[in-house]
Amino acid sequence: MRGVVSVVRDGGVADEVAVEEPLEIRVDGAALAVTMRTPGHDEELALGFLHGEGLIGGPRAAGPTEDLAGNTVEVTGPLLRSPSARSFYTTSSCGVCGKGALEEVAVHAPPLPSGPVVARALLAGLPDKLPQPGFARTGGLHATGLFDAGGSLEIVREDVGRHNAMDKVIGRALLDGLVPLAGRVLCVSGRLSFELVQKACVAGAPILVGVGAPTSLAVSLAEDRGLTLCGFAREGRVNVYTRAERAPMGPSDGSSP
Amino acid sequence: MRGVVSVVRDGGVADEVAVEEPLEIRVDGAALAVTMRTPGHDEELALGFLHGEGLIGGPRAAGPTEDLAGNTVEVTGPLLRSPSARSFYTTSSCGVCGKGALEEVAVHAPPLPSGPVVARALLAGLPDKLPQPGFARTGGLHATGLFDAGGSLEIVREDVGRHNAMDKVIGRALLDGLVPLAGRVLCVSGRLSFELVQKACVAGAPILVGVGAPTSLAVSLAEDRGLTLCGFAREGRVNVYTRAERAPMGPSDGSSP
Repeated sequence: MRGVVSVVRDGGVADEVAVEEPLEIRVDGAALAVTMRTPGHDEELALGFLHGEGLIGGPRAAGPTEDLAGNTVEVTGPLLRSPSARSFYTTSSCGVCGKGALEEVAVHAPPLPSGPVVARALLAGLPDKLPQPGFARTGGLHATGLFDAGGSLEIVREDVGRHNAMDKVIGRALLDGLVPLAGRVLCVSGRLSFELVQKACVAGAPILVGVGAPTSLAVSLAEDRGLTLCGFAREGRVNVYTRAERAPMGPSDGSSP
Repeated sequence: MRGVVSVVRDGGVADEVAVEEPLEIRVDGAALAVTMRTPGHDEELALGFLHGEGLIGGPRAAGPTEDLAGNTVEVTGPLLRSPSARSFYTTSSCGVCGKGALEEVAVHAPPLPSGPVVARALLAGLPDKLPQPGFARTGGLHATGLFDAGGSLEIVREDVGRHNAMDKVIGRALLDGLVPLAGRVLCVSGRLSFELVQKACVAGAPILVGVGAPTSLAVSLAEDRGLTLCGFAREGRVNVYTRAERAPMGPSDGSSP
């Protein structure tokens, strides 16, 4: 597995750890962003990142450059709009106050259409269907999966950065012609930040499930854009924070206290 | 608690979630970076961030501005060097390849001196001494603690971003005249990325302990700078990846398989 490397720790024990290296994303030769990522699927990462920022609307040609030891990916332009320098500051968030951030997202993420309707018990079980071989070996990788409304896995990626894992999935979906992700569900192995909700909304995914907790701004953005946000998906239960009409309870469903 | 807010989820249940809002960091009126953070201790966050980037060497005057609803913090300059635009791309990482990143860090982080020597069992137990009231209520906050070599807690901060929690601790330590953090131990509630090792090295902390896994670049940087990196600190055990001479095993110590 390319994203895992062995290190020797104290006592001569060999441990496997997740690979973390910077990737520079270039568009038409100009550097646009640097992200710390696990190598592999770099073209998907670049396309998913650019899509989440509203800079491309569909797939583009992308590939490695020869001059920088595989840590640069080049994407063919032009972009839909001029990238705001602010967008690429310490996170890929877009504003100064929460309100500003929401307005920026609204520019390139139309409200999500209604549907699909997916049984809550199925959503609660999605993390168990998320293959995480890299995490099993290192404890240091996040995963994102794309599922259809019946709970079948379509794409999964692992990365040292949770936002990168989702970018890789969305980049793959772009290349496969699956975006907007209407009728599908994104599932992440960790917490639910504003940034992940933003990426899901821009990709048109109506339901986002996470094993961990949502933040305040994640809930606000999900409500504003009409995304069904589900947190704490564990042990057959899940908390639904917004737009619960897509996630009806069955007779045997419960929710965490 | 300022960093926690209540939301109502499906079924009318009130849930507490971690607050996430953007913060713009300005120096002498010019915007330098935006980070998604949990409000509170914003001046510490700004100072810790600037210190980790090698832009300030000691405390500065810092405070909120009146015009942007509390989501802007203004720091008085001048800076030690001109900030590289690349430094503030999607993460605060500093380079294109790992080698480049390591060289950039070496500029403003001299190798760490030897010592202190801290019993491995004490290091393994530090996460249990890290107060996490916000995490207990929300499941959505990371924590960083600063301990002395005897295991006494000196500073602790929680934040929705793991890098922010460490920046806040280091910013507080700057204001208290504790930097460089010679003879002290930093402990984080999660995984150990390159970025966290970078911040610890620049602040002069010789030992960094985490509950989670290290990445490949975190191990490489720790080895290069002479930091003792300890991961998987759980249930009385800890893995020591680098510079184990600061963390000797006692007769009853073990390490995870």
